[in-house]
Amino acid sequence: MYGLIGKMRATPGQRDALLAILLDGTDAMPGCLSYVIAQDPADADAIWITEVWTDAGSHKASLSLPAVQQAIAKARSLIAGFDSHVETVPVGGHGLPSPR
Amino acid sequence: MYGLIGKMRATPGQRDALLAILLDGTDAMPGCLSYVIAQDPADADAIWITEVWTDAGSHKASLSLPAVQQAIAKARSLIAGFDSHVETVPVGGHGLPSPR
Repeated sequence: MYGLIGKMRATPGQRDALLAILLDGTDAMPGCLSYVIAQDPADADAIWITEVWTDAGSHKASLSLPAVQQAIAKARSLIAGFDSHVETVPVGGHGLPSPR
Repeated sequence: MYGLIGKMRATPGQRDALLAILLDGTDAMPGCLSYVIAQDPADADAIWITEVWTDAGSHKASLSLPAVQQAIAKARSLIAGFDSHVETVPVGGHGLPSPR
């Protein structure tokens, strides 16, 4: 599995608008096992995104999906930057689909 | 929802042993929607844990479960410390159970 943990920063006051675009653009991504979008309660412009994919290739391919391309285009002007971005290797836990 | 993103540090060389305990101790926790345990490929002793709970109370209650208490007791000597620990407010995404 391939994982990402990232902290995204919205332009001031635009977090809710950015969240709405992210929530709308994350359905039906092949190979995506988990994609959790969260507010940071201690940082009014910050969004945490934690992702689990079957492999790095599925994540990379998702960036070319029309729905994701459209979400990126709509979101771009609302993103001030990325505070952190970590790649991980998920090994298991609870709430992931069973291996097929 | 209530979320946690944490980076745990194993004592040198003990990451696999610590992972095994964590993987074993995270079944059947009431209110736990997602609990993903991951290696950090860039840091040989680091483990990332990302959690989603129905609410903060469910997370707090889980710490008293016998299986979790046993896992904590077994893991304690293998944990060197915590590099980061962030609380989040998950708002949605993909791969979480549908609201009931």
